[in-house]
Amino acid sequence: MKPNFSLRLRIFNLNCWGIPYLSKNRGDRVKRLGDFLNMESFDLALLEEVWSEQDFQYLRQKLLPTYPAAHYFRSGIIGSGLCVFSKHSIQEFTQHVYTLNGYPYMIHHGDWFCGKAVGLLVLHLSGLVLNAYVTHLHAEYSRQKDIYLAHRVAQAWELAQFIHHTSKKADVVLLCGDLNLHPKDLGCRLLKEWTGLHDAYLETRDFKGSEEGYTMVPENCYINQRELEPFPLGIRIDYVLYKAVSGLYISCKTLRTTTGHDPHGGTPLSDHEALMATLCVRHSPPQHTPSPTHGSAERSPLVSVLKEALAELDLGMAQACRWATFAGYVIGLGLLLLVLLCALAAKGEVREVAILLWTPSVGLLLGVGAVYLFHMQEAKGLSRSWAELQHVLGRAREAQDLGPESQPALLLGQQEGDRSEEQ
Amino acid sequence: MKPNFSLRLRIFNLNCWGIPYLSKNRGDRVKRLGDFLNMESFDLALLEEVWSEQDFQYLRQKLLPTYPAAHYFRSGIIGSGLCVFSKHSIQEFTQHVYTLNGYPYMIHHGDWFCGKAVGLLVLHLSGLVLNAYVTHLHAEYSRQKDIYLAHRVAQAWELAQFIHHTSKKADVVLLCGDLNLHPKDLGCRLLKEWTGLHDAYLETRDFKGSEEGYTMVPENCYINQRELEPFPLGIRIDYVLYKAVSGLYISCKTLRTTTGHDPHGGTPLSDHEALMATLCVRHSPPQHTPSPTHGSAERSPLVSVLKEALAELDLGMAQACRWATFAGYVIGLGLLLLVLLCALAAKGEVREVAILLWTPSVGLLLGVGAVYLFHMQEAKGLSRSWAELQHVLGRAREAQDLGPESQPALLLGQQEGDRSEEQ
Repeated sequence: MKPNFSLRLRIFNLNCWGIPYLSKNRGDRVKRLGDFLNMESFDLALLEEVWSEQDFQYLRQKLLPTYPAAHYFRSGIIGSGLCVFSKHSIQEFTQHVYTLNGYPYMIHHGDWFCGKAVGLLVLHLSGLVLNAYVTHLHAEYSRQKDIYLAHRVAQAWELAQFIHHTSKKADVVLLCGDLNLHPKDLGCRLLKEWTGLHDAYLETRDFKGSEEGYTMVPENCYINQRELEPFPLGIRIDYVLYKAVSGLYISCKTLRTTTGHDPHGGTPLSDHEALMATLCVRHSPPQHTPSPTHGSAERSPLVSVLKEALAELDLGMAQACRWATFAGYVIGLGLLLLVLLCALAAKGEVREVAILLWTPSVGLLLGVGAVYLFHMQEAKGLSRSWAELQHVLGRAREAQDLGPESQPALLLGQQEGDRSEEQ
Repeated sequence: MKPNFSLRLRIFNLNCWGIPYLSKNRGDRVKRLGDFLNMESFDLALLEEVWSEQDFQYLRQKLLPTYPAAHYFRSGIIGSGLCVFSKHSIQEFTQHVYTLNGYPYMIHHGDWFCGKAVGLLVLHLSGLVLNAYVTHLHAEYSRQKDIYLAHRVAQAWELAQFIHHTSKKADVVLLCGDLNLHPKDLGCRLLKEWTGLHDAYLETRDFKGSEEGYTMVPENCYINQRELEPFPLGIRIDYVLYKAVSGLYISCKTLRTTTGHDPHGGTPLSDHEALMATLCVRHSPPQHTPSPTHGSAERSPLVSVLKEALAELDLGMAQACRWATFAGYVIGLGLLLLVLLCALAAKGEVREVAILLWTPSVGLLLGVGAVYLFHMQEAKGLSRSWAELQHVLGRAREAQDLGPESQPALLLGQQEGDRSEEQ
C-alpha cells in the first residue's frame, strides 16, 4: 500500500419499515428508495426491516446496474429483514442468528418470529479487507418496563463477539443497523467497548441532519407519536460504526441524515431516518498512544460495562428460572388434575364434565410444558453470554494485577485487533 | 519465532455418552475418565455428550490441578454436551449454535432439545495463536433413510464457515469432535474441502488402535450392536482434524485410539472410542506447491462437493416446503371444521358432540400451526446455507474462467488463510 493511499467509502443505512400489509405506502416507498439509491450510487447500502423477499427482489432488479452485488439474509420464520446492495463484488458472506430474541407467546411484538441476526459481508477494496456488518436488535417496546432488556444485552454481546472473532484479519470494520439502543444504553456501550468501534455521529466534524443525529423524529409522518412521547425531540437508535486496524486511519468525512422527509423533502422513505456517511481510510504511521481503557482495569469503561452487563444478565437468568419454576409447578398441578379427572370419569360421577375437561387440560399441560422448555433454554442462552462476559472481566482484572504494561498482551485477542487503531 | 521452533501438543477427544439415567455406569466411567486425564496430563481434553453439568463440575474439581482452565458450552434446552479442559490458560471462548438440528416432534431422538453447537477456544502457546474447536453434529439414526441428512450437511457447512471466518488470524487450527459422519460422507468432505483441515488418522505414520481407526467398534460392551449391524467391523465418526498457516508445518506424530476397552484394558470409558493425538508444530519456510484444488475448478474436489451439497440442500428445502404446504392445508381444513362445529352447536343439532370436539380441534390446529412455522423456519435455514454455498461455487467458477493464476486471489478469503499450509 502506498503511503499516500486513500479510500473513500459512501455508505447508506436505513430501517425500511417494510412490513407487508401493515406499513403504510410500502410499495411507493420501496420504489422511491430504489430510485434514490440508483441516483446516489453509494458503495454500500445496508437495509433493515425488508421483511418481504419480494421487496428485496424488486430492489435487486432495479439496482442491478448500479449495485451488481446483493444479498438477503434469511433466518427465523419471517426472516431477519436484513439485506445489502454493493457496488463492489462481495467476496464472502455469512450470518449469525441471535440465540435469544424475545418470547414466542408475545405474538403482538413479533420479534421472536423474525430470527433477528447479524449479517457479515467481506469485500476486498483497493487491497484492503473490509468486513461490513448489518444488524437489527430486538425492539424496545417500553423503556420503563423493558422485559426484553436482558435479551438485548445478550444480543449486543453476541454481536460484539461475532465482530470480534470474525474481523481479526480485516483492515476496516463497518457496522450499520438499527440497534434499538440509545447511545448511552448498556448494550451500546458494551458493543463499543468490546469491539473498539467508533460512532460516526460522534466522530464526524461535518454533520447535517436531524437534531442530535436522531433517527426517529416527530416530524416523520409515519412515526407512532405515542411511542415518542417520552422523547419529544426524537431518539437515536440507528448507527454507522467503524474502525480500522493499526497502520490505517479511518475518519467520517461527512454524515447526513434525512429529517422526517425523503432526501428531496417529500414524504419519508420510512418511519426511521436514513444515514448517509462518507468514510475515508488513509495510511498512517503506527502510533502507540495508550487507549483510555488501558488505565486502571477496575476503573476502565470496559470493566464497568462488563460488570453492568453481568448484573443485567443475572436479573434475566433469575427471571427465566422463576418462569421455568412457575411452569414446573403448573405442570405438577396439571398432572394432578388429569389424575383426578381420570378418577372421576372411572367412578362415573360427573363423567361428562370430566371427559369434557380432559382435552383442554392436556392442551394446557402441553402449552405450559412448552413454556417451561422455552424458559430453560432462555436461562441457558443467558448463562452462555454470562460465562463469556465473566471470562473477559477476569482477564481484564488479571491484566490490572500485572500492571499496565502487560495489559495489551493479556487482552491480546481484543486489544491487538480492535483497539490499536488511532483516530 | 526461531527457525528451530517446535511445539508439541497432546490432545484427547471422547464422546462420553453421559446421558443421565440412561447411560450405563455413568458415574464410574466419569470417575475413571478423570483419573485417566489427570494421569496423562494432555494439553487439551475435548469432550462431547457431557449432558449433565454436575458431571462437568465433578471433572472440573477433579482435574483442577492438572487442567486449571475449563469451559462448559451451554446451549439449547438440555445443553450442547460440549466441554473442554486445558492445561494452558484459555484466552477467549465463544460458541455457535447450529441453525438446524432435527425436529422437536422427534422426541425419542432428542437432538433438537440439545442445541448442538461448535465451541471455540483461543489459546496462546509459545507465541502462536491456537484456535481449538469442539463439536457434535446431529446423529444418524438410519443410514438407509436418513431424514436428517440435509440438516447434517447444513451443520457441516455452518461448522466450516464458523471455522473459516473465526480462524483467519490463527496460526494453528484444531477441530475435535463427534461429527456423526463417515470419512467419505458429503458433510465430512465439504468440511475438509472448505476449511483445508487434515485428518489425523489419514496423516499420521504412527497409528495404534482399532482397525481402520474406527471410533465405534463391536468389541465395546456398551455399543448398541443392532446399530452397528450394517458395519460389522465398526465406524469412524469421531475425528481429530488440524491445519497450520503458511510458514508453519503441522504433523500428527502419533495417534492412538482405545479399542473397546478403557486405556488399561478394563471396561470402556464410553460407547465411543477415545482419540489421543500428539501433534507437532514446527517452523517451515514458505512453499508454493499448488494445492490439488487449484486445478480445473469444475473438476476440483471443492466444486464437486459444493454441487453435491447444493443438491442435498435442494432436496431438504423441497421436503421442508412440502411439509409446510401440507400443514397449511391441514390448517385450512381445521378452520373449516371449527366453523362447522360452531354451526352445529348454534343449531342445537348434536350440540354436545360439537362442544366436545371443539377443544381437541383447536388444540390440533395450534399443533399443526407450530409444525407449519417450524418447517417454514427449516426452509429459511436451509436456504441460508444454500445461498452461501452457491456464492462460493460461483466464485470458484469465476476463478476457473480467469485461469489458474487468478484462483488464489479470487478465492482469497478461503485460500489465503486455509490452504496455504503445506504438510
